[in-house]
Amino acid sequence: MADKKKRRRTDPSDSDQQHLPFRNSLKSDEIILQTLKDLCSSSSSDGATGTLTLSDLGLASTCREVADLSLSSVQSTIETLILRLTHSILSGQGFSFSVPSRSSANQLYVPELDRIVLKDKSSLRPFANVSTVRKSAVTTRILQLIHQLCTKNIHVTKRDLFYTDVKLFQDQTQSDSVLDDVSCMLGCTRSSLNVIASEKGVVVGRLIFSDNGDMIDCTKMGMGGKAIPPNIDRVGDMQSDALFILLVEKDAAYIRLAEDRFYNRFPCIIVTAKGQPDVATRLFLRKMKTELKLPVLALVDSDPYGLKILSVYGCGSKNMSYDSANLTTPDIKWLGIRPSDLDKYSIPEQCRLPMTEQDIKTGKDLLEEDFVKKNPGWVEELNLMVKTKQKAEIQALSSFGFQYLSEVYLPLKLQQQDWL
Amino acid sequence: MADKKKRRRTDPSDSDQQHLPFRNSLKSDEIILQTLKDLCSSSSSDGATGTLTLSDLGLASTCREVADLSLSSVQSTIETLILRLTHSILSGQGFSFSVPSRSSANQLYVPELDRIVLKDKSSLRPFANVSTVRKSAVTTRILQLIHQLCTKNIHVTKRDLFYTDVKLFQDQTQSDSVLDDVSCMLGCTRSSLNVIASEKGVVVGRLIFSDNGDMIDCTKMGMGGKAIPPNIDRVGDMQSDALFILLVEKDAAYIRLAEDRFYNRFPCIIVTAKGQPDVATRLFLRKMKTELKLPVLALVDSDPYGLKILSVYGCGSKNMSYDSANLTTPDIKWLGIRPSDLDKYSIPEQCRLPMTEQDIKTGKDLLEEDFVKKNPGWVEELNLMVKTKQKAEIQALSSFGFQYLSEVYLPLKLQQQDWL
Repeated sequence: MADKKKRRRTDPSDSDQQHLPFRNSLKSDEIILQTLKDLCSSSSSDGATGTLTLSDLGLASTCREVADLSLSSVQSTIETLILRLTHSILSGQGFSFSVPSRSSANQLYVPELDRIVLKDKSSLRPFANVSTVRKSAVTTRILQLIHQLCTKNIHVTKRDLFYTDVKLFQDQTQSDSVLDDVSCMLGCTRSSLNVIASEKGVVVGRLIFSDNGDMIDCTKMGMGGKAIPPNIDRVGDMQSDALFILLVEKDAAYIRLAEDRFYNRFPCIIVTAKGQPDVATRLFLRKMKTELKLPVLALVDSDPYGLKILSVYGCGSKNMSYDSANLTTPDIKWLGIRPSDLDKYSIPEQCRLPMTEQDIKTGKDLLEEDFVKKNPGWVEELNLMVKTKQKAEIQALSSFGFQYLSEVYLPLKLQQQDWL
Repeated sequence: MADKKKRRRTDPSDSDQQHLPFRNSLKSDEIILQTLKDLCSSSSSDGATGTLTLSDLGLASTCREVADLSLSSVQSTIETLILRLTHSILSGQGFSFSVPSRSSANQLYVPELDRIVLKDKSSLRPFANVSTVRKSAVTTRILQLIHQLCTKNIHVTKRDLFYTDVKLFQDQTQSDSVLDDVSCMLGCTRSSLNVIASEKGVVVGRLIFSDNGDMIDCTKMGMGGKAIPPNIDRVGDMQSDALFILLVEKDAAYIRLAEDRFYNRFPCIIVTAKGQPDVATRLFLRKMKTELKLPVLALVDSDPYGLKILSVYGCGSKNMSYDSANLTTPDIKWLGIRPSDLDKYSIPEQCRLPMTEQDIKTGKDLLEEDFVKKNPGWVEELNLMVKTKQKAEIQALSSFGFQYLSEVYLPLKLQQQDWL
């Protein structure tokens, strides 16, 4: 019987695909595409979470948020601030900065917004005080350097900033921390200050955008894809005929999908930060979601770390809570690999990995987090993970053949609208 | 006097540039360009090191090297091998693989080639032997999987390969190690086996090339640049009007040069692996150097680690010595930051870092390495580093202003032909 089957097929490379689990459950691409069109139109019509602001919730006076400001506004805000300090000095009162507190006691998860925000507590940083004189000197110097960046209109990294005055800053954590203070004080994002993070993300698929004036067509970026620019303020003119954004945790899965040009079969934009999300990729994802109004489906490992990554994209990291509005992408759907997929797709026992004590602890901690609790489906999945004590990487799907991910698993997930 | 100077200048952002050290030593760009043209023409005419082979040196019979093979040759080589094994089995003798040894005892640094190569020692891996039965089973399975990749003409990562048979491979180090064995046995590069490394490098500047059929113009890649493709076999059609390749260790320096479009002032191709060189970037650099016949100038940190990175690009890493011919780029010039630059460019004391005990040990170890010893200039620089016990990052140049690197340091280095 097996012989007969083999003889019928002319392409030998296809012979092994007959035995792929669930291959027979796949409907035609047209049917799957219709599912995606429905998802896409519902995503562009609601998007309520995305547009809700602190003022809508009556929180504007008790919470603090930064915004993208133009270089000239940053410049004039700094000038106004310094002018005020000068007046204060000339009137014999010395000077002090009012610096928003960024401690976790001043942070708040807002369920309606589905992200962490900063409350409005501030503290004074007087120059004429032994305990704050150094920090206020550092703050003044950072303000001066930022002003210089705005005048020249160039971008630098945090490391560059540190090296402009090592004698004063002493070590980079000090200049980094004051840089965040300055963001909060001026009420603008770190990108508005022209201080950028190094990039590591890549993007490929149905997206056209401009990077520093150059038009980039991401369907024509081969397998390597386009490196996501470190400075979001020079990214613009986004156009796309995609039906969704596929956010991929790992490089290996990204490569598979890029080589198979998955985005041509199911119009999408594929993006990855190759592990822990960096600021540049988070800003880029947010911009795509906002401008193109596309649903975002996430493909991460089935372990607590994968869910953690999803949460950073979704509702932000604690140490940059003041900028959560710009860094987070609301309403990301968890497509896979989900703990329930392990049995559902019969992932072989030897491709599952036992969770370590630390994994289990991280999983349990996540169950206490607001952003997980508000999604009953996620809670259920995470409970299953902690109960079975099993995790699995995206690559575990390779046990059914190298292209199982792009040819069966993802199409079936999309067809069944199997996201949470 | 200072006032007068300031009043004369209309652009306030330029006022600080008057005090930049060595700015006045800079000649016109035309003069510097002529220097680069000379370098470029000498590089394309000699290139002796690049074309010298093991056979030229009479080492072909005692050393082993792999080559890029087409998919169909890999396929037929595997088929021939398996046929031979089958004959052996049918004649009642069982089967065994002859596997080249990849241990350090079987490695050799060849000064004429300036890289590490593998000698010709092999060992037998019989199936009918308790100590080798598992490894020969793994080898057979890997051969089968590679054959499948060739038939389908798709690329996978080592991680994918591992997951196709976790039960057999047990852990990834085993499948990785046998994969390297198979490369050596078949006499072809790992890229020829369609097993790829994940990419992390980026390229920008005066280069046009094709990635999986898409033409990429690296002058139109904005600030983010083009991600270097993971699979070199689908990279081709390289064209360039650059005069040199600038190999940069770190992301921050790359961003500075990309934003300033340094490649438009001095026609060059700028490439970085963002730290430790990955296989994809090494293959890409090698291909650029070979096809475009351009000199390669390296900008790395002034520490033992920077020199180590230079050496991996230049003469290869020990664990992939069998493929050093394809992975290494001969004749890379050490442009900066060199230990002697610290005093020469008056890098402020506080921007230099004290070397740790480990740094100093690494530095001394490097002094014993053949690839350092053969370049007297490098030995001198490294001796200076170990003596002064000081290191410095590329970013230390930011202490003279954010654009000092692109506006003064690099142009002056080029003008003075200050590379080793």
